[in-house]
Amino acid sequence: MLERELLEHIYARSSDLAGEGEIVVGPGDDCAVVRTGAGLLAIGVDQLIEGRHFEPDTDIDLIARKAVGRSISDLAAMGAAPCWGLATAVLPDGYARADALFDRMAHWAKHWGAPLIGGDIAGSDGPLSLTVTAAGMLGEHGPVLRSGARAGDAVFVTGPIGGSLASGRHLSFEPRLDAGRAAAGVATAMIDVSDGLGLDADRVARASGVVLEIDAERVPLHPDVGLWREAVGDGEDYELLIVGPEGAELGTRIGRVRAAEAGETAAAWFVTPDGARIGAGGLGWDHGGE
Amino acid sequence: MLERELLEHIYARSSDLAGEGEIVVGPGDDCAVVRTGAGLLAIGVDQLIEGRHFEPDTDIDLIARKAVGRSISDLAAMGAAPCWGLATAVLPDGYARADALFDRMAHWAKHWGAPLIGGDIAGSDGPLSLTVTAAGMLGEHGPVLRSGARAGDAVFVTGPIGGSLASGRHLSFEPRLDAGRAAAGVATAMIDVSDGLGLDADRVARASGVVLEIDAERVPLHPDVGLWREAVGDGEDYELLIVGPEGAELGTRIGRVRAAEAGETAAAWFVTPDGARIGAGGLGWDHGGE
Repeated sequence: MLERELLEHIYARSSDLAGEGEIVVGPGDDCAVVRTGAGLLAIGVDQLIEGRHFEPDTDIDLIARKAVGRSISDLAAMGAAPCWGLATAVLPDGYARADALFDRMAHWAKHWGAPLIGGDIAGSDGPLSLTVTAAGMLGEHGPVLRSGARAGDAVFVTGPIGGSLASGRHLSFEPRLDAGRAAAGVATAMIDVSDGLGLDADRVARASGVVLEIDAERVPLHPDVGLWREAVGDGEDYELLIVGPEGAELGTRIGRVRAAEAGETAAAWFVTPDGARIGAGGLGWDHGGE
Repeated sequence: MLERELLEHIYARSSDLAGEGEIVVGPGDDCAVVRTGAGLLAIGVDQLIEGRHFEPDTDIDLIARKAVGRSISDLAAMGAAPCWGLATAVLPDGYARADALFDRMAHWAKHWGAPLIGGDIAGSDGPLSLTVTAAGMLGEHGPVLRSGARAGDAVFVTGPIGGSLASGRHLSFEPRLDAGRAAAGVATAMIDVSDGLGLDADRVARASGVVLEIDAERVPLHPDVGLWREAVGDGEDYELLIVGPEGAELGTRIGRVRAAEAGETAAAWFVTPDGARIGAGGLGWDHGGE
């Protein structure tokens, strides 16, 4: 079963959660959202697995940075301000660098405003694997969800895309906390680009029930990236894809939103200068079916 | 490095967190505690690893139940009422039962009052490993920590101990939520017995800076358990060890608390009917050094 199918089942089972008690947003967005007396709290969790998300010989500080940064990026994509975190580690038998790893995880979590207040350690004969749960406070505007894009909106991205794995940028990205918070109250939809600009744009389109059209030649690319078509599928960019009103200053404008026509599926498309349309959803990573 | 040493380093690095902003309790107890406008929120995370915490042929429903139950038990040990949870899974390549597993995790999380509002899925060539982050609200009395035991208090346990792994009870325990909540406002210290009554009693003694003396013959044992000395080291009982005033109804009374004498280390001891004293801290599990 593909990750997408698994997730659809999970979302279907959880569809009655939002609105129940303190739960505002359940499974299916970058983070969940709960109501507390002080306001709204966004909470997300992400994993980092040796051999999948980093190579075994990766510097400890970069492993720690990426493990924390991925969860912080999810908070950025909701427009939240980090406030605390929890971490877990499955350590391979005989692993000698746990203390340094936890020290650097604590460092980065504090650096981004989500000090680690708890966690758990276990051992196994498998690869090193880490999780970071991160919580962040939402301001008066509430969360920016994936599902709010409206016909007539423009599509923005906060920075250049592509080549993250080849260049090593996937280990040292800066979560777009400032851009995410600035977008709250202005943006109609937002997601962090972790699985590729194409697939993540498609997720926004489907969640919002609209069509996103992205001008392929407008997508900003890193200088070390060749073809846009590869760049938008590379993933692990951790820029924000933001949808909002035309004219808003939310990043580089790369496309527009229109209503789905009768019988047309909500989806994202890349449009090339010669008018070709390429489905965006097939250009990114689906991790589950490997 | 032993888990105990690793944890001591983590706690030392985090010692300035409590009292910072919304953080009330940092690393080192069953859960962390943060202040929200509505009151205090306890949050904990626990892991479940195939081959360590369950055998590969274990029934899916029991794996799910244990994964969720461990984190719920941590909330019970703070006196908290579960309100939401997050789950992650590292699935072995080709794992075919993920959908059933997530369905049962969602079931048990909802059953104990902490519906899963988010999570993450990854793949690896290692064993199946799960995490559950669980949050619970604390009542007006606040959390019951490990560190509050006072000389003159009595020591209680909520149920029989021992043989959890051999009997399969480690897969089907009932987290002591009711006992934990009833103890809030009465108990001075509390912990859930996951690593053995001996080691967990010792943790309470050290955190509280007192001496716990447990009468070995008073420890309630399951009928299928032979020797008390094995039972108190078996672990995975998920009963609560509660410290509170003499005469309080907090479970089976098994011992007492006294002040450490000059030069004496805070610790827990088992006392046998013939007056022998056996250090409790050496009788349980330390997972980290395997």
